[in-house]
Amino acid sequence: MNEGERLTELAKRRGFYFPAAGAYGGAAGFWTYGPQGAALKDNIEDAWRDRFVVQAGHQEISAPDVMPEPVFEASGHLDGFDDMIIECGECGATHRADHIVEDNTDIEEAESLPNEEVMDIIAEHDIPCPSCQASLADEPVDNFNLMFETNIGPGTSSPGYLRPETAQGIFVEFPQLSEYARNQLPFGVAQIGKAYRNEISPRKSLVRVREFTQAELEHFVDPEEDEPPLESVADVTLPLYSGESQQADDGGVEHLTVRDAVDGGVITSDWVAYYLGVARDWYERIGIDMERFRFRQHLPGELAHYASDCWDAEAEIDGDWIEITGFAYRGDYDLQKHAEYSGDDYTVFKQYDEPVTVERPTVDPDMSYLGPEFGGDAGAVADALEALAEREPDAFEGDDVTVEVDGEAYTVPVEATNFSVEEMTENGEHITPHVVEPSFGVGRLIYTVLAHAYRADEVDGEERTYLELPAEQAPTTVGVFPLMDRDGLGEYAGELAEGLRRAGHSVTYDDSGAIGRRYRRQDEIGTPYCVTVDYESIGEPADGDGESATDPRTDTVTLRERDTTAQKRVPIDGLAETLDGLIDGDIAFDDL
Amino acid sequence: MNEGERLTELAKRRGFYFPAAGAYGGAAGFWTYGPQGAALKDNIEDAWRDRFVVQAGHQEISAPDVMPEPVFEASGHLDGFDDMIIECGECGATHRADHIVEDNTDIEEAESLPNEEVMDIIAEHDIPCPSCQASLADEPVDNFNLMFETNIGPGTSSPGYLRPETAQGIFVEFPQLSEYARNQLPFGVAQIGKAYRNEISPRKSLVRVREFTQAELEHFVDPEEDEPPLESVADVTLPLYSGESQQADDGGVEHLTVRDAVDGGVITSDWVAYYLGVARDWYERIGIDMERFRFRQHLPGELAHYASDCWDAEAEIDGDWIEITGFAYRGDYDLQKHAEYSGDDYTVFKQYDEPVTVERPTVDPDMSYLGPEFGGDAGAVADALEALAEREPDAFEGDDVTVEVDGEAYTVPVEATNFSVEEMTENGEHITPHVVEPSFGVGRLIYTVLAHAYRADEVDGEERTYLELPAEQAPTTVGVFPLMDRDGLGEYAGELAEGLRRAGHSVTYDDSGAIGRRYRRQDEIGTPYCVTVDYESIGEPADGDGESATDPRTDTVTLRERDTTAQKRVPIDGLAETLDGLIDGDIAFDDL
Repeated sequence: MNEGERLTELAKRRGFYFPAAGAYGGAAGFWTYGPQGAALKDNIEDAWRDRFVVQAGHQEISAPDVMPEPVFEASGHLDGFDDMIIECGECGATHRADHIVEDNTDIEEAESLPNEEVMDIIAEHDIPCPSCQASLADEPVDNFNLMFETNIGPGTSSPGYLRPETAQGIFVEFPQLSEYARNQLPFGVAQIGKAYRNEISPRKSLVRVREFTQAELEHFVDPEEDEPPLESVADVTLPLYSGESQQADDGGVEHLTVRDAVDGGVITSDWVAYYLGVARDWYERIGIDMERFRFRQHLPGELAHYASDCWDAEAEIDGDWIEITGFAYRGDYDLQKHAEYSGDDYTVFKQYDEPVTVERPTVDPDMSYLGPEFGGDAGAVADALEALAEREPDAFEGDDVTVEVDGEAYTVPVEATNFSVEEMTENGEHITPHVVEPSFGVGRLIYTVLAHAYRADEVDGEERTYLELPAEQAPTTVGVFPLMDRDGLGEYAGELAEGLRRAGHSVTYDDSGAIGRRYRRQDEIGTPYCVTVDYESIGEPADGDGESATDPRTDTVTLRERDTTAQKRVPIDGLAETLDGLIDGDIAFDDL
Repeated sequence: MNEGERLTELAKRRGFYFPAAGAYGGAAGFWTYGPQGAALKDNIEDAWRDRFVVQAGHQEISAPDVMPEPVFEASGHLDGFDDMIIECGECGATHRADHIVEDNTDIEEAESLPNEEVMDIIAEHDIPCPSCQASLADEPVDNFNLMFETNIGPGTSSPGYLRPETAQGIFVEFPQLSEYARNQLPFGVAQIGKAYRNEISPRKSLVRVREFTQAELEHFVDPEEDEPPLESVADVTLPLYSGESQQADDGGVEHLTVRDAVDGGVITSDWVAYYLGVARDWYERIGIDMERFRFRQHLPGELAHYASDCWDAEAEIDGDWIEITGFAYRGDYDLQKHAEYSGDDYTVFKQYDEPVTVERPTVDPDMSYLGPEFGGDAGAVADALEALAEREPDAFEGDDVTVEVDGEAYTVPVEATNFSVEEMTENGEHITPHVVEPSFGVGRLIYTVLAHAYRADEVDGEERTYLELPAEQAPTTVGVFPLMDRDGLGEYAGELAEGLRRAGHSVTYDDSGAIGRRYRRQDEIGTPYCVTVDYESIGEPADGDGESATDPRTDTVTLRERDTTAQKRVPIDGLAETLDGLIDGDIAFDDL
């Protein structure tokens, strides 16, 4: 079993995640998070919220998953959010054309090739259908839109789509959100929520799925004035796999501080550099192995149409590099598009430090001349004069001025245009903010954190599997066991578990099976600490003859550490605080 | 403005919620939660999780929103999850037929009438189209399925639906979830997530929407043995509006303790009674006004087909009663259906205290006789004999036994059936658990909490609006202001805000406008406390002449309480802890 298979087996057995609706054969690309997975997901989302929203002073919103069609006309998803599909004429199976090219040739990034070229490559290499081995040589390669479509209300007159990214729910509401920020740049709006992509061929467990959770931050900035607090991350070292390195024969990952990467021009956007620094430390906090991690720059051909510089955070699993976050400088693309399509105002008014005086050329065409002269075209001629005055005031210096309307030239005496240059005082201008976007895939983070936490060792001659999750992320922080469920041990341990729950711990109570088996179960879900209540804890009960207990009550329990399996006796009094200290790293287990 | 309109206005202006995608005219029934609303939603979900999952020792999962068709064939949603629709022949508008009947006649619960009858009523009362006033008298009343439909993968061969309730994501996975609970009843599985209903006529802001969040708990119990811990809520007083009261002329809400309601037979299920008690206290905790609240029992005609007793928690807003939670004893309906449709095992094995001996009649038909005798029907005859032996062993007491297959009778000598009765020892049996379900609508909880928290008073001769939210639920727990943004007050207040954030508080920093205006802004979003940094806090700066400051530094800030607008000076040292104490109720503001 490779890493991924081993993980998928553990994930199902222990309740992290499993294919949804398995009783009905399931539907590829849909997964259910079981109790441990849902808790881990919550913890990772909370850690993200803490770092990228609360500590950053940003705001979080929650927009609908279903959005009406005009949103995606504007965003470009309706037209351009496609994958290449090929259907087997023999068995009817559908496949991603670019993937089967990559799987059967040395070609990488086949996605960036035109459909015809992909079709030619398939014919040339005689690539067979992965399902039935029939020839795909003459099958067309088509575009398949990845959005799930539905209908809002009765009938089909209002198509709606499941959002393919949470970002559009933020962009489309910019006018309202900007008001909440009192129109002061910079401000950030975050969202954690579901996104949906109707993948042709879902694969690799949580990596390529049809329904997933994104955590996205859209940081709206004034491109001329706002600067990120680079100094706060200047010394963070980034493993950078630049575009240049990727294209060089002997290129590899370079380790540069944020400062050096910016100064050396490896990262061109200060904002992107800032977020790489912030994110790098955050990945380590949630348990991603920094030895199996890199930031990879998008190659020029790979860049989205809206982005000027993009880096992906990638984690290694089974030798593959998996994108876990995209960092993009999206410019003003998204807000411009929504402004254009909706007609609403997607700008903020930027006040100048001092009012400035500007010369504004204007015309006020004399319609009593233009009307009789140009008839039905008079209005269009007036508009053209106005545009010309703004664009090229010098054109009004002679006696006549000529404009073109629908390919035809119209000449007007300058006198009849009432051209003049006015001096105006302006207090500011409307600008469209630029957007910096770190976009995290929560499912892929979970997959990576689990894969990188997986450990196998030997304890007392037996093989042991455990997850070395950071205590902050572990679904359960403490397992509580009675040594046996008799003589009041069970009741006592149950009450102890209750108390720890009330103190805010995530507790699993377990009284079934040998104590070693119970430790193993907690090891496999990454529970950092276990507590066992035994006769020493509560005193051995007097037996029938009325004599007093032989084992005196010590009011202590056995506390066991997951990674070392070391055990210590600690007082029950203050146990919740001891655990808090261990989890926060304020207390070392060895010092107990 | 009525309560609902007033709230909708405040909600949009202050960032609680607003219609989604308004730049494109929006789509009815879809709302975006702004920064304050998303935070309030998070807080209410956390409070729910705390009470119904963590403290109860239950488990939480997260299943997909899109599920394949067979799930909803089994659940009954594909066939039966309909509303009555009528389309205007004149203007083409569609309406809920039962609603227009209720709006235009004295008839209540028109939903429970057959379509034909609703059609007749519309004709009889000559009810016009609400959009264009044309007659609807001859228009048909049809069923409209409320599930949003989509397609999974390319083509239309795999229809999928947006789940209309989160519950099915739990039921369908019962076999797996039961394993995680080690097949020990009772156990509870919860889910907080989106659900979708393609309402014909969304209305009343967050009340009838097309996309919403549910918090559902499915508590799987052994109906014969498991009992809820009723004593823990026995003394909680419930405002009960029973079916009997609803049907009586002078019936009203009765206030009964959980114990009395169970003993008096007003609530027939102990499990439902238990959850009404737990929920009643939880509603109060999150800020629902108990004077505007009741539990209403479903009338016999209103009960879902699967439920034996149902109560709704209802909150009053603008004189209307809004369902905020449904409590249902669903029996084994859901698990039985999924077992039947999927063929999987949806039972748990229940071990007997002592093994029992049972007599088991069996046959082992002699195929060398049946084969030649009945040809191709021999197998079916053997199956029929087996079924008969189990059902009616006495039939094997004579010489011959007759079974029917496809309407034809087959007679077989008993000898050839090898009938016998074996004594078997059984250690237990497979049972299908029953389900108790409290199902909360999170959006409606938010709407109710806000409506019930809305207050208007007068402060210093000015009208003031504020939200009296419990501190635990408030989106922002503390507003931090510098008196003015100069002389270092802003920097100092900014750092104070940072520190409070790190200590886990939800902080809004605000330095713009008069201090009174800033207080009002926080009042309107329900922020329980505000902190102002002034010259007394940090000492007045020395002016140009080098003399020392006139206002000595006291290292205190002004702390203001929302509800009373009272102010006190408190030390900056320990401020985070002071706020913790106030929010948890351990410290009274008056005692500061």
